[in-house]
Amino acid sequence: MSAAAPSALNEAIRRVRPIDVAWRARAESGLDRLTKPVGSLGRLESIAARLCAVQETLAPRVTPRRIVVFAADHGVTEEDVSAYPSAVTAQMVGNFLRGGAAVNVLSRAAGCPVAVVDVGVAHDIDTSGREATFVPRRVRSGTRNMTKGPAMSEDECASAIGVGLDVAEQAANEGVALLACGEMGIGNTTAASAITAAMLGVPAADVTGVGTGIDARTLARKVDVVTRALAANQPGRDPLAVLRMVGGLEIAATVGAYLGAAGHRIAIVGDGFIATAAAVVAAAMCPPFLDYWLAGHQSSEPGHACQLRFLRQQPLLALELRLGEGTGAALAIPVIAAAAAVMNEMATFDSAGVSRP
Amino acid sequence: MSAAAPSALNEAIRRVRPIDVAWRARAESGLDRLTKPVGSLGRLESIAARLCAVQETLAPRVTPRRIVVFAADHGVTEEDVSAYPSAVTAQMVGNFLRGGAAVNVLSRAAGCPVAVVDVGVAHDIDTSGREATFVPRRVRSGTRNMTKGPAMSEDECASAIGVGLDVAEQAANEGVALLACGEMGIGNTTAASAITAAMLGVPAADVTGVGTGIDARTLARKVDVVTRALAANQPGRDPLAVLRMVGGLEIAATVGAYLGAAGHRIAIVGDGFIATAAAVVAAAMCPPFLDYWLAGHQSSEPGHACQLRFLRQQPLLALELRLGEGTGAALAIPVIAAAAAVMNEMATFDSAGVSRP
Repeated sequence: MSAAAPSALNEAIRRVRPIDVAWRARAESGLDRLTKPVGSLGRLESIAARLCAVQETLAPRVTPRRIVVFAADHGVTEEDVSAYPSAVTAQMVGNFLRGGAAVNVLSRAAGCPVAVVDVGVAHDIDTSGREATFVPRRVRSGTRNMTKGPAMSEDECASAIGVGLDVAEQAANEGVALLACGEMGIGNTTAASAITAAMLGVPAADVTGVGTGIDARTLARKVDVVTRALAANQPGRDPLAVLRMVGGLEIAATVGAYLGAAGHRIAIVGDGFIATAAAVVAAAMCPPFLDYWLAGHQSSEPGHACQLRFLRQQPLLALELRLGEGTGAALAIPVIAAAAAVMNEMATFDSAGVSRP
Repeated sequence: MSAAAPSALNEAIRRVRPIDVAWRARAESGLDRLTKPVGSLGRLESIAARLCAVQETLAPRVTPRRIVVFAADHGVTEEDVSAYPSAVTAQMVGNFLRGGAAVNVLSRAAGCPVAVVDVGVAHDIDTSGREATFVPRRVRSGTRNMTKGPAMSEDECASAIGVGLDVAEQAANEGVALLACGEMGIGNTTAASAITAAMLGVPAADVTGVGTGIDARTLARKVDVVTRALAANQPGRDPLAVLRMVGGLEIAATVGAYLGAAGHRIAIVGDGFIATAAAVVAAAMCPPFLDYWLAGHQSSEPGHACQLRFLRQQPLLALELRLGEGTGAALAIPVIAAAAAVMNEMATFDSAGVSRP
């Protein structure tokens, strides 16, 4: 895959076409015939119209749906930037597989199966007793320490993107209508902060937060680590260079899955700060990608609000989550499903015999 | 019922006890043992802890759940304050009964049955072909025009409150864990604005909006109507007087259902501007009521934000809805169910073998 991946990425980018605004307009006309004051369902109506345009239909589907959790480790944890040891990545992947983590619980509540992809975990994973799908696609046992050079080689980054493209293609083959990407990787808020600082052109301190929960001294070190990583690598604002030099294997896989899904006209539900770093990269590579991406929630990690403003996207939910994994997307999926149900199930003024204004 | 209802209301108020903060603390300790950074599920955690305290358990239930839509007409529609004719109330009740309205669609999506209570509809209702439960409890065919005197007599208001108390008692008997009240009544944003202006002590113009969608001239007339209704009735800030003089039969029934549910330790999901007017009244009658009431969403009706600030409640969702019916509550229910699932289903650090920080 390694040599072929850059052209696979270019091919995926070429496949993504802007949604047809005529479909959105048709959907809006349909919504205005339903038994409610025009526009009174607010953002549900715009989501419903967007789903119609993505799928080029007036009867949008939201099933099958899927949350794919990409897991990988980060060499930058050598710099002591997280409250948790690196071994927790593999432990949490085991927890995902056995259905005990927050993303499992919230996905079950949303009627959404979870698949877990090992794209670069550094420790052994206990895959026993699993209920979630496990996809072993380890490109490398964690990235390199980005303060000392690029986190990934060109081949490694291309391979990780390729894992995401494969996930999207399989989802398309199985008819998936709604795809979300979650992530697990101790140290990955540091990588996401570095990507965000580089792509938005803002200081590290503006987009670096406490992640899983670090004290003020560790936060200061984390800001310094992000600053040093950007100084050491000088990626500029080229999205592929930023992703490779200061990103992560799970973030690269998410970029691949996002672009692949958009190319296959699958609606994508955004998650937290790390997944949205992937959206920032994907949008820079391919602006029409954002037509397919719905901001699921806004986390309390400060850089997330910066990313969403930069992308000009308004989150569906803002519930002060700061966990990632796909939890924010899982909570947003019922709202998106409700929007589709409005389009598919509501009576019209004519069919219900209700007087118009 | 009419003579007995005031004492029934007092009895219901006496039944409502503040939640036991010790249960909330126990729930918070339990949440901190789950495989996630402490507090990282944000508002889901506070909702889960609240449900635990309401139900005095560490395994909160969210089923059975129920949305009760109270429907009634308003004499103030004589003043031409709505975009729709009064006959639409009965037509929409028929639509609710046959499952074609927004609240039906969103409730189905939330796994939540709908019951419709006629507490004061002014026109005949076509109840044929119904799939929702219909409860005929008409107290009067719409209120009186509140610009010319009280909307309800003392007996009528007490009877309408009693309908809500009965609904809550039946829900308690059937083990309902989560109750939401929606409403339908052409003209009822005018009544809700009058209640809100009186109870918050603010000018009518601050809390009067376009409702189902009126033009600037009609909005100006609506503000004047609210101002005249308050001047004609002089209800002060006494909640029962405000409810009776400038409220509505469906709003009075909601007050009864809210207080009754709180007395039976049923968690309540708030809805939009009109249902929240009932919450303002219920909280003034009985401050501990708010321990049981979760603000489901914030609508785009300007008075709703004022009410939520006054009640010091933060909405779960803010999706620019302005429809009522119970639609905002229906959208919030999956979030509340997800919070309960976190409490009930997530693995602990010990059970999952995950290292702590």
